[in-house]
Amino acid sequence: MSMKLSTKSALIPPSPIRKLVPYAEKAVKNGVKVYKLNIGQPDIAMPQCVFDAVRKVHVNNLPYTNSSGITSYVEALSMAYSKKGHEINTDEIVVTTGGSEAIYFALMVLCNENDEVIIPEPYYANYNGFAIQVGAKIVPITTHIETGFALPKVEEFERIITPKTKAIMICNPNNPTGKLYSKEEILQLRDIAIKHNIFLIADEVYSDFCYDDEEHFSLLELDGVDDRVIVCDSVSKRYSMCGARVGAIISKNKNVMDAVVRLAQTRLSAPYLDQVAAETALRHSSDEYFINVRKEYIQRRNTMVELLHKIEGVECPMPKGAFYVVAKLPVENAEAFAQWLLESYSYEGGTVMLAPAAGFYADPHNCPQNYVRLAYVLCQEDIRKAMNILEHALKEYNK
Amino acid sequence: MSMKLSTKSALIPPSPIRKLVPYAEKAVKNGVKVYKLNIGQPDIAMPQCVFDAVRKVHVNNLPYTNSSGITSYVEALSMAYSKKGHEINTDEIVVTTGGSEAIYFALMVLCNENDEVIIPEPYYANYNGFAIQVGAKIVPITTHIETGFALPKVEEFERIITPKTKAIMICNPNNPTGKLYSKEEILQLRDIAIKHNIFLIADEVYSDFCYDDEEHFSLLELDGVDDRVIVCDSVSKRYSMCGARVGAIISKNKNVMDAVVRLAQTRLSAPYLDQVAAETALRHSSDEYFINVRKEYIQRRNTMVELLHKIEGVECPMPKGAFYVVAKLPVENAEAFAQWLLESYSYEGGTVMLAPAAGFYADPHNCPQNYVRLAYVLCQEDIRKAMNILEHALKEYNK
Repeated sequence: MSMKLSTKSALIPPSPIRKLVPYAEKAVKNGVKVYKLNIGQPDIAMPQCVFDAVRKVHVNNLPYTNSSGITSYVEALSMAYSKKGHEINTDEIVVTTGGSEAIYFALMVLCNENDEVIIPEPYYANYNGFAIQVGAKIVPITTHIETGFALPKVEEFERIITPKTKAIMICNPNNPTGKLYSKEEILQLRDIAIKHNIFLIADEVYSDFCYDDEEHFSLLELDGVDDRVIVCDSVSKRYSMCGARVGAIISKNKNVMDAVVRLAQTRLSAPYLDQVAAETALRHSSDEYFINVRKEYIQRRNTMVELLHKIEGVECPMPKGAFYVVAKLPVENAEAFAQWLLESYSYEGGTVMLAPAAGFYADPHNCPQNYVRLAYVLCQEDIRKAMNILEHALKEYNK
Repeated sequence: MSMKLSTKSALIPPSPIRKLVPYAEKAVKNGVKVYKLNIGQPDIAMPQCVFDAVRKVHVNNLPYTNSSGITSYVEALSMAYSKKGHEINTDEIVVTTGGSEAIYFALMVLCNENDEVIIPEPYYANYNGFAIQVGAKIVPITTHIETGFALPKVEEFERIITPKTKAIMICNPNNPTGKLYSKEEILQLRDIAIKHNIFLIADEVYSDFCYDDEEHFSLLELDGVDDRVIVCDSVSKRYSMCGARVGAIISKNKNVMDAVVRLAQTRLSAPYLDQVAAETALRHSSDEYFINVRKEYIQRRNTMVELLHKIEGVECPMPKGAFYVVAKLPVENAEAFAQWLLESYSYEGGTVMLAPAAGFYADPHNCPQNYVRLAYVLCQEDIRKAMNILEHALKEYNK
């Protein structure tokens, strides 16, 4: 009886993105080149100054840093936000171990057991794992491909708000849909938050990835809800430093930050070398670096979406941010198709790995079973090849 | 009403070790040299090969690693444990973000809300923060300076075991007491675990720090309780790499490891560069490196304890492991004394910073108010100076 593990540990879902990994490994073993469109790990080089900085670090040993982050890095973050027009003091920032920990801290600070957090779905699958650890309940509000995954109307939010609702959480720009929420959509959230006395959490780790001259409207820009806003950030995507595990949590709510600091003290510190690397990227990478990165992603997106649109039966909106597309495929079951691609198909020696979108829904059965998420984190030539494979595969599959 | 933060967030205690920091900062500002005996951050140099490895890392960007850790590092860990006589397969190890995350994972996997974990007290203060996040209740079992902080008898454990008891957790060698538990003490825990059908968790991050030819008896050596044992490890202390945030959780219980892997997937990965550094330290640091480290700590310990024993009214056992001493001081209240040392005292331009032991007790009022923890992580000369200051300070304070 006492040997039973915790209820929560049984509920933590395995990563849906990694479910197909064994099939991919087998394909590779069989000599098939697998174009991985299933994960959001950028292939782009970090800024050169990061390499130089890490090589130049001269320490006798690797020390703990301040639990809230290396002071000079926190200052650099504060300046960077202010450059974007957000006045954020250093005591309104705590450096976290990746954006992941920022999300976990936000939920832990706000939610008691069974408190509810409304999240537009499809949503980043790992939110489930964090919510379960905290005991919070994710209440999905479904967005639709037909409207480009726009936020539902106020009435739809109000229909699911209960006395247990603690916050609305968004990812902006969105993983998995690539949707960039407009200023109007964010203002609508503000009004709901004030009216129903709840918090707003935004996962803004893709905030620099906005395309076609559209601008990111951060929760930090909202007036009159300083006390209600928590923003989660990360260097993972911006500088291609996923493995650094350096993020940040930002809030002007003093009670929130006081609790976050205590949570941060419990785990002592975020990694030292990686904070040095992150600070270097922030202070010393050229503006040109990210201009080029963005240019590259726009071209990749255009290539992928254009080619997707040319495939018969495929539908997808033109995403305005992040580096993902959710597409509807002319198949019955995207998961079976994704597995078939890896197990039984290749074209000119290659196949593609897709992420079935069901993993991004609170209830996988809620998801149209023919949706997939594709990440455009490969070079354009590989994207072209992958789309060509996908086109041929769909013909073959539907014979 | 909904703007209230979570109950748990209010319970997370601030770090007791860092409470005196503002006073120390003020002393430094006033030109006083502060000998920091309050924190367990080693000053010893990392193995040289770690510097070299980090400088030689040639990657285009910093990737996520496998959620369970870089495969070759996990293999190196498996080999290292086997060298110590523990047969641990690679799927019985998950690399964690510091020993901290290993502790959190262990508690999260085992404990439902209000489940109890028995921990000999005084104990590492951050266990409180992790237990609160998980909703577990720490049930302390007090150990005493008079017996060198030995484990209490079986009957004392049995008196506090309830149907809610999920595990006994120890830190061995112990932080804060420096106690190294004997084989007999560990066998006693095994018998209790079997009889009462509970788990055993050991925080063994100091396992290499054992002195005077006494050997560390790991939970991994126990027969017949493979299913009940979880061990938490870390490179922080062994290689002076606290800021790497690389630890490990080890168990032969398949259900435990299955849950740990899913928890690890939720936060994606431990830091990449730091795992490379940790693997290098493990594979390529010379045996000599750690022989010298241990020699240095033994000399520091001897110096500190000898000098403590010479101070009138000070009592402390000779610790056999880790790098801490818990000492009884001839003062009424160690916290007031520690603050006075920083605020109002200096001798030959210096003062010392101590950690009042109350912070290491489940109920601070349970702690004899005149106990402190001292870490011998300074060079011997500084330890001598610090002990000299302490001696003069006690005379002055008790005038």
